[in-house]
Amino acid sequence: MTVKAYGAHAGDRPLESLDITRRAPGPHDVQIEIAFCGVCHSDLHQVRGEWAGTLYPCVPGHEIVGTVSAVGAHVSRHKVGDLVGVGCMVDSCQGCADCEAGLENYCDHMVGTYNGPTRDAPGHTLGGYSESIVVHERYVLRVSHAREQLASVAPLLCAGITTWSPLRHWQAGPGKAVGIVGIGGLGHMGIKLARALGAHVVAFTTSESKRQDAEALGAHEVVVSRDPAAMAAQAKRLDLIVNTVAAPHDLDAYLNLLKRDGTMVLVGAPSTPHPSPQVFNLIMKRRALAGSMIGGIPETQEMLDFCAEHGIVADIEMIRADEINAAYERMLAGDVKYRFVIDSATLAA
Amino acid sequence: MTVKAYGAHAGDRPLESLDITRRAPGPHDVQIEIAFCGVCHSDLHQVRGEWAGTLYPCVPGHEIVGTVSAVGAHVSRHKVGDLVGVGCMVDSCQGCADCEAGLENYCDHMVGTYNGPTRDAPGHTLGGYSESIVVHERYVLRVSHAREQLASVAPLLCAGITTWSPLRHWQAGPGKAVGIVGIGGLGHMGIKLARALGAHVVAFTTSESKRQDAEALGAHEVVVSRDPAAMAAQAKRLDLIVNTVAAPHDLDAYLNLLKRDGTMVLVGAPSTPHPSPQVFNLIMKRRALAGSMIGGIPETQEMLDFCAEHGIVADIEMIRADEINAAYERMLAGDVKYRFVIDSATLAA
Repeated sequence: MTVKAYGAHAGDRPLESLDITRRAPGPHDVQIEIAFCGVCHSDLHQVRGEWAGTLYPCVPGHEIVGTVSAVGAHVSRHKVGDLVGVGCMVDSCQGCADCEAGLENYCDHMVGTYNGPTRDAPGHTLGGYSESIVVHERYVLRVSHAREQLASVAPLLCAGITTWSPLRHWQAGPGKAVGIVGIGGLGHMGIKLARALGAHVVAFTTSESKRQDAEALGAHEVVVSRDPAAMAAQAKRLDLIVNTVAAPHDLDAYLNLLKRDGTMVLVGAPSTPHPSPQVFNLIMKRRALAGSMIGGIPETQEMLDFCAEHGIVADIEMIRADEINAAYERMLAGDVKYRFVIDSATLAA
Repeated sequence: MTVKAYGAHAGDRPLESLDITRRAPGPHDVQIEIAFCGVCHSDLHQVRGEWAGTLYPCVPGHEIVGTVSAVGAHVSRHKVGDLVGVGCMVDSCQGCADCEAGLENYCDHMVGTYNGPTRDAPGHTLGGYSESIVVHERYVLRVSHAREQLASVAPLLCAGITTWSPLRHWQAGPGKAVGIVGIGGLGHMGIKLARALGAHVVAFTTSESKRQDAEALGAHEVVVSRDPAAMAAQAKRLDLIVNTVAAPHDLDAYLNLLKRDGTMVLVGAPSTPHPSPQVFNLIMKRRALAGSMIGGIPETQEMLDFCAEHGIVADIEMIRADEINAAYERMLAGDVKYRFVIDSATLAA
């Protein structure tokens, strides 16, 4: 099946309309008519060849929502007409300890939704900036939000689960003080989710101008990280910090805000290393610096169900497919609140 | 009471025989006739003024074992004649969450066994390179080893608990693969304790010459860290790494050996930072880099009891007090297996 998509033929070329093919659904496959696809910073880095190994043509997009349009003979979890989502992965080995634990995201053979190995043409996976996609049912999530919320659900598939997974793993909830560093695509979801989980939420931003927004998103406290007195006032107060800032920055400034046994979880990898953290700050209070990468399929389903139940969606700005190159420039300038979402209906225009 | 001690009047002067005073035991105090005191690397750094804030005269020593010679009226835990130990601290606030959790080592007002604040003359605590010490009963540990093992018990009070605490906190035991990096005073205890706890123990050393020793100490496997193939063979195999090396080194080489959800715990702080670890290595498998500092009083008692039950002591080389300056030079050269212990009877010589 040939479908419309948006992608690039090289790292130094803009994204443009492409025709791509999708396989016919196999016995365990779900064919999805894509309604919306969120725009993640990873899309930009990958399609522009800023990370090693981008294969072209590259069609980004791993915050996919839509409607099931066909299912294979052995598919039991989904049926035609269901609202569904696909996140950052479309396959994994299904046999290792990580897969068996429902943490397919840590499987050594996890296949990304785009730029991953596949037997389908052209030999690598093509993502959600497209009209449809065919995915093994294991990696297809149920969406129980209302249909009219669907565009705002899309970013939950990456920005949502990437913050949900560490919040749950490190047990954010009532009685816990949780810091969220950075108020962007990930951070704005981190604030909403931590608040809904019952934690006391402290948002950190470099910009005084984001204070009101952070409060509106659900932060109990907002700290401008350039204010030393405000930072000092948070010393040893936090149980958990989810740090969404990928740009290199001083980790010690945040490690010192953790209580004994507190953990700061990094969910973004900088292109050049952060300044080396002081070991003393870890030793003094048995603190930990950890990392977390997206999330597994069961916890992604849990997050989607939780969000539907609590009325949580992302804050988005809808764009047409042919606005994607301009949207990337605005993302680089931090000019989006808080996630662009492509209206897939515009791909055919 | 005036007693003999060994210490220094300035960072650039050798240690020499000193006369110091000890307070009369208060109602909750235990007076201890010191039999032996282990020699920790911290002693050397502190007495030489290599860390900020050393107060002089400085009498180091926080691996203290001896016999109770007097007790205050309200002391219930110890009696005259008991074999006891004192580790790295002699006081704390006794009221904070850390103290209440039995983690006095993380109390903001923890008082070190030497160089800590006290109302006793000369205004800072004086450590175990001395004939006797007076300590609040809370910070005095019971020793149930045989009296003839006492010298080899001394290093358990710092080297032992510093490795025991992270091994227990991160649940080393049957079914877990535990790496111990560095085979020195701390590392040799880490190997013994991890083995006795039932873990599969992999020792890492830069020196092929330590292979046999590490095996004798209890390591199931020994990896020479300069051998890339041997390191690669350990990739993603370890649940926990206790890294005892304080010298700056490549942390990524070890982080990559952790399984998903594995933790590397640093128990030494380098004087200059380690090269900054790659965040990607943390994110990829939800790994953590943590720190741990000595241990609390209840877990120190647990460790001593465990060691007595399992016949575990440190490997030591006994020295006279007047050999301490030469011993420091040998420590800097790595020429000790694995801990010097001062025979306190030689202080009066």
